Parts: sequence; C-alpha cells; structure tokens
Amino acid sequence: MVEDSERLDTIFHALSDPTRRAMLNGLARGPCNVGDLAAPFDMSLAAASKHIKVLEKAGLVKRSVQGRTHVCSLDALPMHAGVEWMRHYEKFWNQQLDVLEALLVAEDRGEAKKQTETNTDAKKKGSKS
Amino acid sequence: MVEDSERLDTIFHALSDPTRRAMLNGLARGPCNVGDLAAPFDMSLAAASKHIKVLEKAGLVKRSVQGRTHVCSLDALPMHAGVEWMRHYEKFWNQQLDVLEALLVAEDRGEAKKQTETNTDAKKKGSKS
Repeated sequence: MVEDSERLDTIFHALSDPTRRAMLNGLARGPCNVGDLAAPFDMSLAAASKHIKVLEKAGLVKRSVQGRTHVCSLDALPMHAGVEWMRHYEKFWNQQLDVLEALLVAEDRGEAKKQTETNTDAKKKGSKS
Repeated sequence: MVEDSERLDTIFHALSDPTRRAMLNGLARGPCNVGDLAAPFDMSLAAASKHIKVLEKAGLVKRSVQGRTHVCSLDALPMHAGVEWMRHYEKFWNQQLDVLEALLVAEDRGEAKKQTETNTDAKKKGSKS
C-alpha cells in the first residue's frame, strides 16, 4: 500500500507541471533524443533534463542510450494507476454534472417559457392595435 | 488554454501528497470540520491546514463557516479535468496492457505444454516399469 502511495505521489507530481505535460505530449508522437525533447522550451538543457528526470522517476519516460545519444520514449502505463485512483471519485463528480445539467435544462425551459409569454403578449398587443 | 493548464497544475499538485489524498478519502464519507479532518494525521493543526488550503486552491475542497466552525466538503468535479487529460494517453497504456496480456497467455501456454510433456513422459516411464 505504501509502495502504491509513493507511486501515486511521483505520478501526480510529474503531471503537475506544464513543461512535463508538454514533454509527454511530444513523446506521444514518438521517441526522441533529449536535445529535441528540450528544444521547444525556453529553458536551459540542464533545467529540461531535471524535468525529464522527474518523468523518469514516475516511470512515464524511459531512456535508452544509443551510442552517444540518449533516446527518450513514453511509457503511459503508470498513468493508469492515477486514473484508477481518481475513478473512485467518479460517482461524486457525476452527481455534480447531473445537477448542473438539470439546472441548465430548467434554465432553458424557463427561458423558453418567458419567450413564449413575450410572443403571446406581442400577439395580443398586435391584435388590439 | 493557460487557465486550463494552471488548473491541471493545481489539481495534480494537490493529488501528489498522501495526506491530501487521505483527506479527500475522508471527505468522501461526508463533510467534517477542520479539526476532525486533521485528527487522523500525525501533524500539527497548522500543517494540516496547509494541506487543506492546497486542496481548496485546486477546488477539491469547499469550506463553509458555520458559526465558529469551518466545515470542509469534497468537490470532486475538478478531478474530471485531470482524468480527461490522462485519457488522451489511454490508447498507449492499453497497447502495453495488451502486450503484457499476450506475454502472460504465451507463458501460460508454455507452462501447460511443459506440464503435458512431463505428464506424458511420466506415463511412458510408468508403462515401461
């Protein structure tokens, strides 16, 4: 249980930064070397490398050394544990989404009723004049 | 898009700590006051309050003041955005789960074949003796 909890810590921590999420997005298009992975970001290679290390620690990025090149690839499997943890709360947000939907439907009906009444009043006035 | 990104930062950051995840788990049973929410954790009330503030910032906890009591309640809806973000990667981890499943099936078949061969050998030896 402790092991799973630490795993969730590293996964959610890795995902809590926009640069790291953008790096995962880049790797979803295919593996690439560290330089290419860091290139789109306005930061030093050292700073980008730190982000990659956080992703590696979470198991979301695998690094293989091919000659002088470090090639990074996506490993999305650990995200599955994060989604599974959050799914325990699905019933709560579904209840909230249902309430929001009901409110919107009620609002739409109210608007429609108001519109019908306005149209009816306009017709009555039109027939009087 | 920036706003959504900041929202994801705060949600994933809030979920990256075992105390905060345990607090959400406690609130899933129903609203409670700050003292009761902090009680199960081996930390000061000030430290627990900091965790609650992180959860509030992420929108996962709502606080209402009833007289002198601060009552906290769960708001799971922001988690929906986190799950939706991760679902983009579902096809990748599904591919990996499929590969793992295929490996396990192949291993089971290999084991079953080995067992059948062992049994056949034993029978042959038995009929010879």
